[in-house]
Amino acid sequence: MTDADDPLAVFRDRFALPEGVIYLDGNSLGALPRATADRLTATAIKEWGAGLITSWNAAGWISAPQRIGDKIARLVGAGEGEVIACDSTSVNVFKLLTAALSLNPGRTTILSESGNFPTDVYMMQGIEQLTGGSVRARLVEPAAVEEAIDNDVAVLLLTQVHYKTGRMRDLARTTALAHQRGALAVWDLSHSAGAVPVDLGAAHADFAVGCGYKYLNGGPGAPAWLHVAERHQERVTPALSGWFGHAAPFDFVDEYVPASGIARFLCGTPPILGLAALECGVDLLLEADMAAVRAKSLALAELFMARMAPLCARHGFTLVSPADPVERGSQVAYAHPEGYAIMQALIARRVIGDFRAPDILRFGLTPLYLRFADIERAVEILAEIMAQSAWDRPEYRVRAAVT
Amino acid sequence: MTDADDPLAVFRDRFALPEGVIYLDGNSLGALPRATADRLTATAIKEWGAGLITSWNAAGWISAPQRIGDKIARLVGAGEGEVIACDSTSVNVFKLLTAALSLNPGRTTILSESGNFPTDVYMMQGIEQLTGGSVRARLVEPAAVEEAIDNDVAVLLLTQVHYKTGRMRDLARTTALAHQRGALAVWDLSHSAGAVPVDLGAAHADFAVGCGYKYLNGGPGAPAWLHVAERHQERVTPALSGWFGHAAPFDFVDEYVPASGIARFLCGTPPILGLAALECGVDLLLEADMAAVRAKSLALAELFMARMAPLCARHGFTLVSPADPVERGSQVAYAHPEGYAIMQALIARRVIGDFRAPDILRFGLTPLYLRFADIERAVEILAEIMAQSAWDRPEYRVRAAVT
Repeated sequence: MTDADDPLAVFRDRFALPEGVIYLDGNSLGALPRATADRLTATAIKEWGAGLITSWNAAGWISAPQRIGDKIARLVGAGEGEVIACDSTSVNVFKLLTAALSLNPGRTTILSESGNFPTDVYMMQGIEQLTGGSVRARLVEPAAVEEAIDNDVAVLLLTQVHYKTGRMRDLARTTALAHQRGALAVWDLSHSAGAVPVDLGAAHADFAVGCGYKYLNGGPGAPAWLHVAERHQERVTPALSGWFGHAAPFDFVDEYVPASGIARFLCGTPPILGLAALECGVDLLLEADMAAVRAKSLALAELFMARMAPLCARHGFTLVSPADPVERGSQVAYAHPEGYAIMQALIARRVIGDFRAPDILRFGLTPLYLRFADIERAVEILAEIMAQSAWDRPEYRVRAAVT
Repeated sequence: MTDADDPLAVFRDRFALPEGVIYLDGNSLGALPRATADRLTATAIKEWGAGLITSWNAAGWISAPQRIGDKIARLVGAGEGEVIACDSTSVNVFKLLTAALSLNPGRTTILSESGNFPTDVYMMQGIEQLTGGSVRARLVEPAAVEEAIDNDVAVLLLTQVHYKTGRMRDLARTTALAHQRGALAVWDLSHSAGAVPVDLGAAHADFAVGCGYKYLNGGPGAPAWLHVAERHQERVTPALSGWFGHAAPFDFVDEYVPASGIARFLCGTPPILGLAALECGVDLLLEADMAAVRAKSLALAELFMARMAPLCARHGFTLVSPADPVERGSQVAYAHPEGYAIMQALIARRVIGDFRAPDILRFGLTPLYLRFADIERAVEILAEIMAQSAWDRPEYRVRAAVT
């Protein structure tokens, strides 16, 4: 595939990208869809300013979490009424872990892997501490996860696509294994949704959570989302039992009675401005075909790795993403001892990727707005930087703190 | 005080209010500050669109929760570093109740009053259920709260200004009583912040939480805020232990270590669009003097009640807000058996208040954008409605469901 025959090429103009920047960090913060600023203005001026309180019904604010959730569901193979947009990924991890624990009462362990995205691990540790240790937060090496699913594991918490390396787990196979051993599974799809095809329904998944501001292009700190399989919904009484998850929030009664269906996993009042921006991002993604997105993502990665091969040989970069595309999400990552300084030099040349300690250069591949020419040029610039610089000079040895 | 000598009259033009509407619902959703739409556009186009990931530092996104928290602190008499803007009121209630419980380990009861704002009560009930009943969520009648603070009460959860009646509790006196009996106190200031002067410092308050979208004019579903007295901060390990509350979030380590200070009460990635709008609302309020806001609020209420007196006598309205201004926040509420239908008739005449079951008509008084003439006119319209209508006709007896 080249830019000339790229079926997704038309999407680039739907984003407001800064001139001269090659943006390889859409897996950290997705780019701005052109439609979003107008939507925010309309939400503020027409809906909030002119409509005021009436917009909760008249402008559909009240149903935004479900409406956007149903749209995200289509990106991850979930059914209608199984996904809702709300809160942060972290808060949603808490909701789903406590839900899973309540459904598996004889067991006390939450199992995950070391090096998982920190907030997932921290939320587990918070539950351990909150329960005075009666729930155990257990981390094992990534390769040891499967054998560690013993008969005390209530719930397995895994990220499908690893934030650093891009390594992709087999969601269906691992879910089946967890079920076979009596455990439930919570999947963090922050680096999956909108990036790789996901089929939660076919995998008979229990729970999933994901981020709104990466491949969904929902904006900085966008609302996150969560998925609960329909078969589990009515069996869970949410721990974060806020009024928007109540069966009749505007009855203002003293007793918490959960709403039926996915709405019970709401907590506080929905963040309307953030949801409006998130919806623009999701709508744009829904115009594309996820199979085409995946095909282009893999083609971009193949090109990137091919162009990087000489730099690996000459300058000591090591591919840390899986070479096999089946095991890789929509990013490529390389280790280099001077990774931090090299990334700073790239950013100075307007090639924006990011650095993850201790030594990872991470390049996100977002098929809706990246061109093959961008990949070519990014690696050329990296080659120029490596050719011009003496990385053994003392000033490059001073590793600045990551802020 | 009249519109002619109102020192806050200049603020009305700083809001984008719809023509011909008298908006008495700013205690449900505050009005749109004129500055907000431009700020949202700049945040989207310049910061997100052009700055992309670099805006976390370059545009000050990373410090927005603390920066806005410090501004809100000035409205509620808290110190710098004691308030942070984040999550929803509901989620923040959970954080503070679990924090208080952890600081008072010999005790197991969360005490509140029946008829408190539902989400506060529901969050208590969620904790009771999450702990398998080892924490007890106890509700007593409002008048019985003080005597109910027994030696099992770990934390008292009260709203300073009641959402329905506007009744205002004496925050300092009740906090002192709680402390005297060995309990901590969490205050919900959703109907206080920006509406009445609050001095958390002088009251030696422990914890407070509040809403961003009422008197702070932060927009629909705006981020909420929380306050933790400096003396408690380092003693709490947050239950919602997300990565943004970590001491070094970008070190990506496996072990949760809370940040020092108020930052540890963050959880997920901050919602930048919502925070930008909230900051506009808070900045505007900080231009006004809270004593002047309170003086005008009481003058508006006095006028409202004076004009309502004949309607109470003639049409059966009953004041349910305290007559004594010391015990009243920034709203007035009346009970009427046909309250729902009457409010619908008012809204049809473009006087927007709200109805709260079973029979309360609630009128919020927001001194920054309401005029005395608005109050006069609102009550005139209500008088016309009551004079023209036969409330004993069958069609008014059908009470529609509140949606």
